[in-house]
Amino acid sequence: MPANFRYVALADEIQENILNGVFTPGEKLPSLRKLKNTLGLSISTIHQAYIELEKRGRIEAKEKSGFYVKALETSLLDRPAQETDVGQPCQVNVNEMAEIIIKDLQTDRVLQLGAAIPSKELMPLKQLSRIMKSMPARDLQNSFSNYDLCAGNTELREELSKRMLGLACSIQADDIVTTNGCLEAVTLCLRAVAKPGDTILVESPVFHCFLQAIEDLNLYVVEIPGCSEDGILPDTFEKAVLKNKINACVFNSNFQNPLGSVMSKTNKAKILAIARTHDIPIIEDDIYGDLYHGDKRPSTFKSMDTTGMVLYCSSFSKALSPGLRAGWCVPGIYRDAVIRLKLNTSISSPGINHSIVAKFIKTGAYDRHLRQLRNRLKNQVSAMIIAVSKHFPTNTKTTFPTGGLCIWVVLDPAIDSMEIYQKTYRENISILPGTICSTTDTYKNCLRINCGTKWSTKVEAGIKTLGKIIGNSFNTLP
Amino acid sequence: MPANFRYVALADEIQENILNGVFTPGEKLPSLRKLKNTLGLSISTIHQAYIELEKRGRIEAKEKSGFYVKALETSLLDRPAQETDVGQPCQVNVNEMAEIIIKDLQTDRVLQLGAAIPSKELMPLKQLSRIMKSMPARDLQNSFSNYDLCAGNTELREELSKRMLGLACSIQADDIVTTNGCLEAVTLCLRAVAKPGDTILVESPVFHCFLQAIEDLNLYVVEIPGCSEDGILPDTFEKAVLKNKINACVFNSNFQNPLGSVMSKTNKAKILAIARTHDIPIIEDDIYGDLYHGDKRPSTFKSMDTTGMVLYCSSFSKALSPGLRAGWCVPGIYRDAVIRLKLNTSISSPGINHSIVAKFIKTGAYDRHLRQLRNRLKNQVSAMIIAVSKHFPTNTKTTFPTGGLCIWVVLDPAIDSMEIYQKTYRENISILPGTICSTTDTYKNCLRINCGTKWSTKVEAGIKTLGKIIGNSFNTLP
Repeated sequence: MPANFRYVALADEIQENILNGVFTPGEKLPSLRKLKNTLGLSISTIHQAYIELEKRGRIEAKEKSGFYVKALETSLLDRPAQETDVGQPCQVNVNEMAEIIIKDLQTDRVLQLGAAIPSKELMPLKQLSRIMKSMPARDLQNSFSNYDLCAGNTELREELSKRMLGLACSIQADDIVTTNGCLEAVTLCLRAVAKPGDTILVESPVFHCFLQAIEDLNLYVVEIPGCSEDGILPDTFEKAVLKNKINACVFNSNFQNPLGSVMSKTNKAKILAIARTHDIPIIEDDIYGDLYHGDKRPSTFKSMDTTGMVLYCSSFSKALSPGLRAGWCVPGIYRDAVIRLKLNTSISSPGINHSIVAKFIKTGAYDRHLRQLRNRLKNQVSAMIIAVSKHFPTNTKTTFPTGGLCIWVVLDPAIDSMEIYQKTYRENISILPGTICSTTDTYKNCLRINCGTKWSTKVEAGIKTLGKIIGNSFNTLP
Repeated sequence: MPANFRYVALADEIQENILNGVFTPGEKLPSLRKLKNTLGLSISTIHQAYIELEKRGRIEAKEKSGFYVKALETSLLDRPAQETDVGQPCQVNVNEMAEIIIKDLQTDRVLQLGAAIPSKELMPLKQLSRIMKSMPARDLQNSFSNYDLCAGNTELREELSKRMLGLACSIQADDIVTTNGCLEAVTLCLRAVAKPGDTILVESPVFHCFLQAIEDLNLYVVEIPGCSEDGILPDTFEKAVLKNKINACVFNSNFQNPLGSVMSKTNKAKILAIARTHDIPIIEDDIYGDLYHGDKRPSTFKSMDTTGMVLYCSSFSKALSPGLRAGWCVPGIYRDAVIRLKLNTSISSPGINHSIVAKFIKTGAYDRHLRQLRNRLKNQVSAMIIAVSKHFPTNTKTTFPTGGLCIWVVLDPAIDSMEIYQKTYRENISILPGTICSTTDTYKNCLRINCGTKWSTKVEAGIKTLGKIIGNSFNTLP
């Protein structure tokens, strides 16, 4: 390798370690002398690498002390302001756009900053494929030859009942129904608690597939604006419930998609109490709950649910494998209704896929994997915020989520995210326009950016391009 | 083996060959002398075996000519009479019973004459498991790491588009949407063409899951009585359509479940023309179409559909593997609506399972397997009819289906099939009571019997027990 590239290679390697969580924000990096001895490179090459990383915004020099991994300054950009108006019940009418966007996500040539999934380098794919290959032929044949139980693969439900300790009150395998991913869980639960014409309350901006599922089930929606830190506040919730006849709620209770908000345990308890008073079931989608960046997993509604009115939903799509389609729900008192609906919709889930997930959990590898993934996502989210603060116009606001894998970016009010989406897409970069996260045009000037893609110069270059497109739109505004 | 058991073993072996289709109905069996030379058994043992098979109703002696495989006498039992009344639109209200019955089917200790599936000995399970085990790790990993296309696994859709030659007008892979089994295809199609409060026309008696899916989607149903040979007649169809506002039809066009009826090509064309005049989409569930017992596959509505108003649905659950959950539909002009609904219900199907099916088809093994399976089912259905005619009361009527794997049995009008179900279940035999195949009580005295279970003395003994229970109910009627 030519000498003048050596420092770039070293900078890349250290950056990789920062993103991997080997070096954490605020940590001191090894001294030049120490690295010289370990790596056998010249002091000058190592110094150049550190300077390069400083330029990239990854590390900072402290006088007479050395180089440190840069801590994420929360003052980098402002947080979005919270809306306070509660919406009227609306017929959902998210247009065809969402389909196009999700279809686009299937293409390899496009930089995926749209769909909220970790990239394949972050998933334990080798282990999963090894488990599949080592399944006894007899088990495979048994699984092929029969409809699995409608409630789902027994092995997986047993593992899930153990994992849900603390997340739900004394759950047994029989309380769980497996599904084809989390969205199937949510739609089955929606069908179990609401009939056509009913009204569903959601936190806004909202995961666009919830809106579309609600539309497709001929339901109405009331959107409550969430705060990017605390989600829905109990007072706002009570106001909405008193104002409208609400038949059910659908909440991402932890690291809400797209805001990244987390309702505190106290607020969850208050909201649950209000819902109970008004006899409103809560569908809790906790798909991002395990992806906390801090030390502690956030709480769930289900853990405080003594009456069975919370229908807990989740899946392994965000942390393990979207392709295996392993989701589940704990529908409380609606269990029989959910099983019946599943039976009459698709009879049963493919047992073999769910059995692979169960076997992976059993090895203990899932918890190890989750620890790595959380670290990784935490650092990628930081890297994304830094890149956005560097390349986007200065009046941009962004969330600073404490879990999950997305950031929500609020642009100048005059900017149309659909236009940005289209222009960006021509550059082979996919993002999610805020427009589709509501039935109103409140989030027209917002974007959701996926931070699950492994950090690389390609990602940084993509953000630079995106920033340039936004800047140009801004400058050419009438 | 003691000499007095040798003839039983030989009889069992020949019976197995008859059910396997090695010897076909009407065929002359090898002479005693020939078998003596081939098998090295005594003439007396072979003769005893033939006498035993004669007793079992499998073969018959023709004077001075030898022994022949018994042809199925269609005069064994009467065919069911056809009802002619067209029903009023009804709110569907099939009760919880169906769930219990399907749950029961999961138990091993129960003789499965209820669910309409072939038993595992009839499926190419070894080959499927070999394909799964030999999948390149890279393919597995790719499939795990991404949501598959919402329209479905490309490999499978390509194989399907070739297989559907002649069954649909110039189909391409892009016209196909894969699903989690056939029932998901039907429910997605129903949601694409009908909104809550709409009315769906079906052939009666009807597959109970259709009724339940219709109920769960808040739709109404009009039942048209089918004839056990021709299904729905065009005149009856037109009468029903003129009398009621019908928004869509759901038909098992070939070997209808449970009647086994097949609409002729001419009748299909007439019904399609009437439907077109009244702008009524037809959801065609052709899941049994490949299981014809004769020489020729029956036609489909889809093959005559020039306007795209037929939504064709099928799956591999009856012929290959229920556990892989590989279904599909060709929704015609409703393709975008179906894809959108699938996206917002479960995002995508697990690609790996569908890829196994595609690879199995590619080897050419599927067509060989189908040939064997058809022969097998044909003979098992004959064996079941013979057993029913032998063990059930003489006023029993039964269908003589020319495809599929079920027979429909009409008992004395005073008999309640739910009671028979319960009594039979106590003897660890599961059947499907006719009661759940309609919103009316027209089929209260009927049963559907699955002939997919490999024929054995256990099955014959089960039918004997069932016959006894029916006979006793009959004798104790008030």
